[in-house]
Amino acid sequence: MLQVKTPDEVFALIQDEFTAIENRTEYIPFTSAMGRVLAEDILAEEYVPDFDRSTVDGFAVRASDTFGCSEAIPAILPLYGEVLMGQGADYTLPAGTCCAVPTGGAIPRGADCAVMIEYTEDYGDGTIGINKAGAPGQNMIFRGDDVYPGKPVLKAGRLLSSQDIGALAAIGRISVPVVKKLRVGVISTGDELVPPEAPPGPGQVRDVNTPMLVSMLTAFGAAAVDYGIVIDDETLLGEKMHKAAEECDAVLISGGSSVGVKDVTCRIIESMGTLLLHGIAIKPGKPTIMGKAGNKPLIGLPGHPVAAFFVAKLFVLPLLCQLMGGDMPRYTVTAELTESVGANHGRAQYNCCRLERHGTRLLAVPVRSKSGLITQLAGADGFFCIERDCEGLPEGAEIQVTLCVGD
Amino acid sequence: MLQVKTPDEVFALIQDEFTAIENRTEYIPFTSAMGRVLAEDILAEEYVPDFDRSTVDGFAVRASDTFGCSEAIPAILPLYGEVLMGQGADYTLPAGTCCAVPTGGAIPRGADCAVMIEYTEDYGDGTIGINKAGAPGQNMIFRGDDVYPGKPVLKAGRLLSSQDIGALAAIGRISVPVVKKLRVGVISTGDELVPPEAPPGPGQVRDVNTPMLVSMLTAFGAAAVDYGIVIDDETLLGEKMHKAAEECDAVLISGGSSVGVKDVTCRIIESMGTLLLHGIAIKPGKPTIMGKAGNKPLIGLPGHPVAAFFVAKLFVLPLLCQLMGGDMPRYTVTAELTESVGANHGRAQYNCCRLERHGTRLLAVPVRSKSGLITQLAGADGFFCIERDCEGLPEGAEIQVTLCVGD
Repeated sequence: MLQVKTPDEVFALIQDEFTAIENRTEYIPFTSAMGRVLAEDILAEEYVPDFDRSTVDGFAVRASDTFGCSEAIPAILPLYGEVLMGQGADYTLPAGTCCAVPTGGAIPRGADCAVMIEYTEDYGDGTIGINKAGAPGQNMIFRGDDVYPGKPVLKAGRLLSSQDIGALAAIGRISVPVVKKLRVGVISTGDELVPPEAPPGPGQVRDVNTPMLVSMLTAFGAAAVDYGIVIDDETLLGEKMHKAAEECDAVLISGGSSVGVKDVTCRIIESMGTLLLHGIAIKPGKPTIMGKAGNKPLIGLPGHPVAAFFVAKLFVLPLLCQLMGGDMPRYTVTAELTESVGANHGRAQYNCCRLERHGTRLLAVPVRSKSGLITQLAGADGFFCIERDCEGLPEGAEIQVTLCVGD
Repeated sequence: MLQVKTPDEVFALIQDEFTAIENRTEYIPFTSAMGRVLAEDILAEEYVPDFDRSTVDGFAVRASDTFGCSEAIPAILPLYGEVLMGQGADYTLPAGTCCAVPTGGAIPRGADCAVMIEYTEDYGDGTIGINKAGAPGQNMIFRGDDVYPGKPVLKAGRLLSSQDIGALAAIGRISVPVVKKLRVGVISTGDELVPPEAPPGPGQVRDVNTPMLVSMLTAFGAAAVDYGIVIDDETLLGEKMHKAAEECDAVLISGGSSVGVKDVTCRIIESMGTLLLHGIAIKPGKPTIMGKAGNKPLIGLPGHPVAAFFVAKLFVLPLLCQLMGGDMPRYTVTAELTESVGANHGRAQYNCCRLERHGTRLLAVPVRSKSGLITQLAGADGFFCIERDCEGLPEGAEIQVTLCVGD
């Protein structure tokens, strides 16, 4: 029998036992790449901008032609031309002249500065008065200032966000290498389970874990494969597990909370590969099983939906990230606990909470319910942990809340 | 000419000028409802569980039959029967007897307590020894403990998350009322713009804002409609704006950063309804225009991608939320600034940063670049604000970072 492990031991186990899946790169249009994990570093292949550019509406000049000028003694420069938006300026600005340029417009060769229109006066006779001296490089972006060939723009493992899509557009990377979506099989087991659309008969309850896990995995960016509900029968369960492991990159089986069935799941995992873990020292979530067939995780989640929720968020998603070679950013917000929460059972305790803003204070309202009740999850904005060596948290305690809204 | 407004004034303006769109409810399968906004409160219509349930593997008893027992003096109770998972227990447990029950199994009438199997002994002669007294209600969930008819489960406006999908499954709400997706038109304007797939000619740059905004809106849960690039021509722009306003619930037009074009956008908005705002006291993002045609927002975003990014995140998404009658949770993480960042221009300054974890410290590394460079966005994990009355932040300052990874 394997020992119950602490969360840190489980994270270490995951790091040791699983590696990023190789050869999983696919190329997709950058406009479809939101939320996908970048498979390779992205280096720029060209200059952005590809020309010297003004950052203001005004006049391109040689800065030296404006040195010493002021409102009282403007520099008077003949207007050599006008740069239009979206057109090149493929000529050299003669010394002692200026040319009109819009924000974002090209600056001709020779000019090394743009003077804001506010500091100029158009005399109407083909000359412009410059009332403020410019400095070389002022109000300009030079060719390649933003990006040049070979410049690293995005790193492999990055979860692509809208700002990254913008950056890919800027450098013209319209096809991007991303990690293929992981296929994750989801199986629910339990003689008491009926699908959510079926009215439960005596002694039956609806299957919560399948739709919850499928939606969590989908939001995470995986392709969830629903294998439905299996009754607690070793042969049937084994067949389903083998089929799911064959077709998927990882398998989650939830339920089987009674002692005999847990043993069945362990036996099936052992027959398919290696049993790595039986029990995590968290509450809820203790009856968790983890194994592998090759590099494929086979995970037995607790049947209680709240426990399955925490184990999936805390351990399964990071494990899937590791398989993808991706970063799993984990951030918490600081909030003030509105009520004391007790804990004294030698396991790290996880609690759902709602978050409420009162002026500048962010309040965490713990969701109270008996263990395993699904309403602990409904409407939760986040969750927090009470460490195993802590006997509880007082009202007003400053806590770190992991957000779970929209994912 | 309208005055430049502070961010708080803009939020107040949005609150005053726009209302939630009415009659936008549609019913969709709960399994497709992740990331959608709930249109109505969800009340339970039945009991969950619909029967008294054991939370342990063990024996259902009348607690009073175990009072006073101990390991030394067990209560010896005849085994009346065994409850199987997923089956009812439609009988009354006779006083002085017990029945075997699995975790999650139904508890028969009469019994008011479940004793864990660890505290029992099966004598093999049809009797069970109970070594520990039970208390009424112990190790049980009663019918309706989780949910009962009429109990509020989720509130209108909630952004549905995987835990909510689980709760909807539990109560059998397989069809849920959500707010129809907003259609948001996106127009880019600028004579210098070419689509990302086209190689820019002299004086041209690729259109960054359309793909960035479309992906941001899509991740937010809106249906983005791409109206493409329009050259800076008042007639063409006007036609495109009218078409987009006709077909969509809101229109974003970005670009037109030169003075003349901003005026054109203002004139078009005025001709379509009301101009509400011209200029926000933030950097970058000042040249922002906001107006409305009826209750439809018409928003002129700055052409600079970084500015357009901040204005969209800070003002446009909350405005869209308001149109949907939804909650827009806004959370920040606390991080430590790794370098000083200057600011002294009388406007609230927004800066992108990357986040790095060093042990227990979360470090915010500000992204340095000239204004308007898209590489300020690439790979950014979040952003922070330096208030207008602040001259900058020193290295080591504790700052609040708004996350922007994956959305």
